Amino acid sequence: MRGSPHFSVIRRCSATGARLGLLRTGHGPIETPAFMPVGTQATVKALTPDELAACGARIILGNTYHLYLRPGHHLIRDMGGLHSFMGWNGPILTDSGGFQIYSLAAMRKITEEGARFRSHIDGSYHTLTPELAIEIQESLGSDIMMCLDTCIPYPSSPEEVRRATDLTTRWAARCKRSKTREDLLLFGIVQGGMDPELRRLHAVQLQEIGFDGYALGGLSVGEPKEKMYEMIEATVPALDTDYPRYVMGVGTPEDLVNAVALGVDLFDCVMPTRNARNGMLFTWEGRLVIKNSRYARDSRPIEPGCGCYTCRNFSRAYLRHLFISKELLSYRLNTIHNVHFYLSLMEAIREAIFQDRFHEFKKRFLEKGEQK
Amino acid sequence: MRGSPHFSVIRRCSATGARLGLLRTGHGPIETPAFMPVGTQATVKALTPDELAACGARIILGNTYHLYLRPGHHLIRDMGGLHSFMGWNGPILTDSGGFQIYSLAAMRKITEEGARFRSHIDGSYHTLTPELAIEIQESLGSDIMMCLDTCIPYPSSPEEVRRATDLTTRWAARCKRSKTREDLLLFGIVQGGMDPELRRLHAVQLQEIGFDGYALGGLSVGEPKEKMYEMIEATVPALDTDYPRYVMGVGTPEDLVNAVALGVDLFDCVMPTRNARNGMLFTWEGRLVIKNSRYARDSRPIEPGCGCYTCRNFSRAYLRHLFISKELLSYRLNTIHNVHFYLSLMEAIREAIFQDRFHEFKKRFLEKGEQK
Repeated sequence: MRGSPHFSVIRRCSATGARLGLLRTGHGPIETPAFMPVGTQATVKALTPDELAACGARIILGNTYHLYLRPGHHLIRDMGGLHSFMGWNGPILTDSGGFQIYSLAAMRKITEEGARFRSHIDGSYHTLTPELAIEIQESLGSDIMMCLDTCIPYPSSPEEVRRATDLTTRWAARCKRSKTREDLLLFGIVQGGMDPELRRLHAVQLQEIGFDGYALGGLSVGEPKEKMYEMIEATVPALDTDYPRYVMGVGTPEDLVNAVALGVDLFDCVMPTRNARNGMLFTWEGRLVIKNSRYARDSRPIEPGCGCYTCRNFSRAYLRHLFISKELLSYRLNTIHNVHFYLSLMEAIREAIFQDRFHEFKKRFLEKGEQK
Repeated sequence: MRGSPHFSVIRRCSATGARLGLLRTGHGPIETPAFMPVGTQATVKALTPDELAACGARIILGNTYHLYLRPGHHLIRDMGGLHSFMGWNGPILTDSGGFQIYSLAAMRKITEEGARFRSHIDGSYHTLTPELAIEIQESLGSDIMMCLDTCIPYPSSPEEVRRATDLTTRWAARCKRSKTREDLLLFGIVQGGMDPELRRLHAVQLQEIGFDGYALGGLSVGEPKEKMYEMIEATVPALDTDYPRYVMGVGTPEDLVNAVALGVDLFDCVMPTRNARNGMLFTWEGRLVIKNSRYARDSRPIEPGCGCYTCRNFSRAYLRHLFISKELLSYRLNTIHNVHFYLSLMEAIREAIFQDRFHEFKKRFLEKGEQK
């Protein structure tokens, strides 16, 4: 196979599958492994683009399902595309909408043609086809588009898994055919349920069609952690080493470190942002639940030494007060810290790979959290 | 009477009662007329202190009632005072809690001793006395403290008004006697319902006790606008011209301009912040309701030429989308614009007084809004 014109592996860990890569997009390059904060409705909840950048974000994710329903992809296209609309000038990856139709829509019916569903907002009927998924994403102008896939519950019967995986393959081919913009990348999504053999087979089939990168979908859907890692381990060796690999919707800091060791390059997850709004803060020493009364008079920042705006300016006592008082500022300050933590973790991972000490980094991180 | 050691009138308008003043506090001087954004629970809702300063805020207001109940004034004192706790290094004025007990508490009983009430948060019983109001405010370390006053509904009977006003006088004397911190200013609150003669009398009585400034309380409580102006007009001439005058809880941009013309120096109001969260935005051309469908594809900022962060970065179309989607960022971006508008208006008022063209400014502003 030829190498990717958009991705280069720069360094490889000598002890694990981890690699440091460079992914080039229409809105600039990003180093991988990278984590994408989730900007569902054209905003990473509670943050401005400036704050995102200050937290270390280089690429963010947008949700096709949400933006299609509201405000609509034609409106965003007419306003100059998603970057211009939301004021984010870095790369954007958009998902295909398949997972949200599965998890959010009021009704869902899958046919060969596409996914018929009812909007969770107003109950209106829609059909998302592979062609429409690409049209929407091209209208948004996302730097990296995802093929429409079909998602299934965990557990599912072997027949169900097989049928959904085969349909995902045919939809992927239709996505590729309907793509018109050369400047945007398109990733395929490997499905296959929790069947390692089917995962490998699907990876091969998608590579025969040929995409700019490959995602692992249908993980972190309720299966045991070991199953998830097993699926990643089964799939990655079947993927061309010259293309980026993306595990969708994953995960905890520990998940990221483990998946990087298995050769994964890209991640997205609502965990840092959603948990922040619920008052759960990540630190290198573990997690901190800010409403805990032990913090009522704690004048220290969330994490002493942390360079985020929140830690540079506010005490745990103040953050606890804001959270208990349900003040809007609480959600923002907590989100800034968690996003900064996730992106600092990715930076530390990249640095460790670059210096070929990732194996040691991983060991220490998983044992007790690495000191910064 | 001697002049105030904390306040100087620098310029007087030749055609109205407006004046440009300098009020010196323990956290720096502020020019008046000034507007104070309301930071009820140790945060101006949705904004960081940095954003407040960038919006032009020089002094903010905190609510004694809320901070006493949560997180408690002893906690804030132990965390270094309100400035340190919330990260705002400019002047802070705190109200006395009287109005919130009147408007928010689950139960209220006024005696000579003080105001007995039940918390709106947890139903617990409390008694706020004049002495406790000062103790709380001294613990918070607010630069300007307010005397505890008794608030009455509009309309009230003459006896009720008289009784409440007399009690406010006795409480004011107790507040002054219990004050221990020389570095903090204490303002009296003129009551008197909608009785001009009683307002004048009360102003005289409070000045006999002697305070660092004088507020007009019990206005903007449902009375017709003309009544409010009538009360301001009745009271101001009874107040020593060398002391700052503060109309509490007022008001619309038009109210501010009119009250400045009557000689008022200080204002606070939740209108810019609360209306922002409800999607109502102030501009020099009038008000703009952001959810209106006419803005769906409007690529202009809220107010072309406005220097606020929101207008420099985001379109009406995007702000409408955020508001309709109930995104946290909506409340913040709208608040930034409205606070910036109010503080720009005050700056324009001060500039107009300085150049002795306030009368013309007022005329044009009230006629059709002044072009920036």
